[in-house]
Amino acid sequence: MSPTITEVDVYDIRFPTSEQLDGSDAMNPDPDYSAAYVVLSTDSPTGLAGYGLCFTIGRGNDVVAAAIKTLRPYVVGRTVDSVTGDLGAFYRLLTHDSQLRWLGPEKGVMHMAAGAVVNAAWDLAARQAGRPVWELLAGMTPEQLVDLVDFRYLSDALTRDEALEILRRAEPGRAERAELLRRRGYPAYTTEPGWLGYEDEKLTRLAKEAVTAGFTQIKLKVGADLDDDLRRMRLAREAVGPDIRIAVDANQRWDVAEAVEWMRALAPFDPYWIEEPTSPDDVLAHAAVRAGQPIRVATGEHVANRVVFKQLLQAGAVDFVQIDAARVAGVNENVAILLLAAKFGVPVCPHAGGVGLCELVQHLSMFDFVAVSGTWDDRVIEYVPHLHEHFTDPVVMRDGRYQAPDAPGFSARMLPATLTDYRYPDGPVWVARQELTR
Amino acid sequence: MSPTITEVDVYDIRFPTSEQLDGSDAMNPDPDYSAAYVVLSTDSPTGLAGYGLCFTIGRGNDVVAAAIKTLRPYVVGRTVDSVTGDLGAFYRLLTHDSQLRWLGPEKGVMHMAAGAVVNAAWDLAARQAGRPVWELLAGMTPEQLVDLVDFRYLSDALTRDEALEILRRAEPGRAERAELLRRRGYPAYTTEPGWLGYEDEKLTRLAKEAVTAGFTQIKLKVGADLDDDLRRMRLAREAVGPDIRIAVDANQRWDVAEAVEWMRALAPFDPYWIEEPTSPDDVLAHAAVRAGQPIRVATGEHVANRVVFKQLLQAGAVDFVQIDAARVAGVNENVAILLLAAKFGVPVCPHAGGVGLCELVQHLSMFDFVAVSGTWDDRVIEYVPHLHEHFTDPVVMRDGRYQAPDAPGFSARMLPATLTDYRYPDGPVWVARQELTR
Repeated sequence: MSPTITEVDVYDIRFPTSEQLDGSDAMNPDPDYSAAYVVLSTDSPTGLAGYGLCFTIGRGNDVVAAAIKTLRPYVVGRTVDSVTGDLGAFYRLLTHDSQLRWLGPEKGVMHMAAGAVVNAAWDLAARQAGRPVWELLAGMTPEQLVDLVDFRYLSDALTRDEALEILRRAEPGRAERAELLRRRGYPAYTTEPGWLGYEDEKLTRLAKEAVTAGFTQIKLKVGADLDDDLRRMRLAREAVGPDIRIAVDANQRWDVAEAVEWMRALAPFDPYWIEEPTSPDDVLAHAAVRAGQPIRVATGEHVANRVVFKQLLQAGAVDFVQIDAARVAGVNENVAILLLAAKFGVPVCPHAGGVGLCELVQHLSMFDFVAVSGTWDDRVIEYVPHLHEHFTDPVVMRDGRYQAPDAPGFSARMLPATLTDYRYPDGPVWVARQELTR
Repeated sequence: MSPTITEVDVYDIRFPTSEQLDGSDAMNPDPDYSAAYVVLSTDSPTGLAGYGLCFTIGRGNDVVAAAIKTLRPYVVGRTVDSVTGDLGAFYRLLTHDSQLRWLGPEKGVMHMAAGAVVNAAWDLAARQAGRPVWELLAGMTPEQLVDLVDFRYLSDALTRDEALEILRRAEPGRAERAELLRRRGYPAYTTEPGWLGYEDEKLTRLAKEAVTAGFTQIKLKVGADLDDDLRRMRLAREAVGPDIRIAVDANQRWDVAEAVEWMRALAPFDPYWIEEPTSPDDVLAHAAVRAGQPIRVATGEHVANRVVFKQLLQAGAVDFVQIDAARVAGVNENVAILLLAAKFGVPVCPHAGGVGLCELVQHLSMFDFVAVSGTWDDRVIEYVPHLHEHFTDPVVMRDGRYQAPDAPGFSARMLPATLTDYRYPDGPVWVARQELTR
């Protein structure tokens, strides 16, 4: 008999990362990396549970927690099998509550909350199956995979039949690619050297260390001051040499004309892509930036949902699609986005970092490699070496590559001590900080 | 000396409208019209305060309330003058908190919450000035008005100088138009007859009553079943005759091909516009629907922010811009959208209804008439005759037109008894309902 889901526990977990300016960029000068963390508890005697999270950068983490709590009636009291047996239906249930949908629709706080719960359900399903999520996905038939997707608003760009065809085309070779993945790991790049708040010396040192560690791509934050960016880009290029890719990231800082002008100025240093040049809602502006200067355009970490990704692809606005594991409504919506990208032949290079985003998103890229696009050419997952110590199954990097997880689940379970120590505002870490500033 | 803002009080107010199927449509079968209601209290001996709200349709109203509370540190302890003296800076402060911005950016729950507080600050400013908001706005200089706008992400379609030029062009005649407005009122249409859950007899009766009341346009909800829509459209057309406009509203129900096909089928009954044919995020789909069938396209009540409105206009995707007073970040962002619409020569026909949306948005259309577009040709404000009895200064309709408010403020102050009776979940109306269903 299937166990029953008995509770949706939500934790407001925050890390005081603003102290070190880790994560600082042109739009986010002092983030406190945070997670609205979800546990789907069950009455299974084995302690079976599902773990998921939504990443935020501090204030407002409690608002996401409140949004997650509104989804409780859709979860508590259901058998595990009724959820994990049809994760497509579960995802649609959470995103199509007609009253809650008004708060988006399918965007912002309410959608991120749905994503955290959907991802926790995937973690639960994978633990139940005794497999990592990437393997669970890569073991599903094309028919099972398209059943995960909500094709509403997609049919002018991708039909169910076209999605099936993409997945069937990638069926031969699944086992070989999975084996290759286990042996070699998935390519990555690191943002470690390039936070905007770091001194030049730290930038140069970390850029060199990244190359030594085996990374072939690094990323620099730009967009606050052009002279600073020119100097930092020169230092980074000198540090890594001509063969290492240097992506740059403006974190939505510019309008179209400014983006074009700025990137023309940085072009001599051969940036690999310009990420988030402008508003993540602005499909037409991304297309104009792409057309107006020579550097490839990437975006996605703040793109609200599959409908906006669809348009970015339809409009030829991006060279790279940067999915985020916890901004859209979880695995299901990301399967749709992977299929859209495959349809348009655009590589997916996920956003990661934050809290647990590396842990989560590696599964999606690995699934893409094995069963959707079937390739890792021109594809890299972002890597940031922060906060992994808080997870029971942290990512494993070797030679600048993500090693394929083999533990059951979605890799986003936090350590019990973390849930105690970093709970906001009453965990000991935050109580101590309040005493310091008193 | 200026009084100080002493508290941001937030009320979770819900009305059990689902009992009567008022407000039912193809996507929202049983809404309970609700408001996250904000009061900015001050220490003024006159009892000066500012009132604002965010409209939702039930579940999740508490999430918006939680989001509003996160803005408290930006408001409490400030002098009234420091807020009302520079409402442009106040709006940017609320929408640009770098940590809270992560929850959007500028969309969904967090953005709606900012809108409620911004609107409450406008109410406060107007009460302080002893004038209705429309008059306060229409009395500002072009320079003061453009200072209200955040031009970030707009400059590829509208610069500050272009906005100034639009406003200066409308300066002559402001006084005459204000006088005309006070005498005649602003044109409206009514959605009263057309809720999807109403029986045919009720539809016919209400359609006839609307014409008798002086309305020259009504609206029908469509999109659930084509045969039903054909029958209801025929009944409505027979009831009102050929000269009354009948707009139809699909509430985001369709993909592109379905929208085109459905509207071609309804076209013989001469619908005036098709509203929300598909996802509010889908600029390109709206453009395709507009190109693919003969009926004019309207959208906006769920459009997340000025950036998406900008693209709808750039892409030639809409014939009517439907601003909403409480979905974007309040008066300031709506001033930007009015200016964008004026730049592209597209009429603004606001969404209203819900809770207090008629009360709020009338001020914005009246300001548009007096000081921005300078015309009411092809322009109508939606009217729905529900829940006005809960406000201290409800809208006044005469001959199918909104009469210009003359009470100081933004017309969205609720009666004290409403705040007690309809508070969720512990007000007497909701306690009684829980007892009924026990």
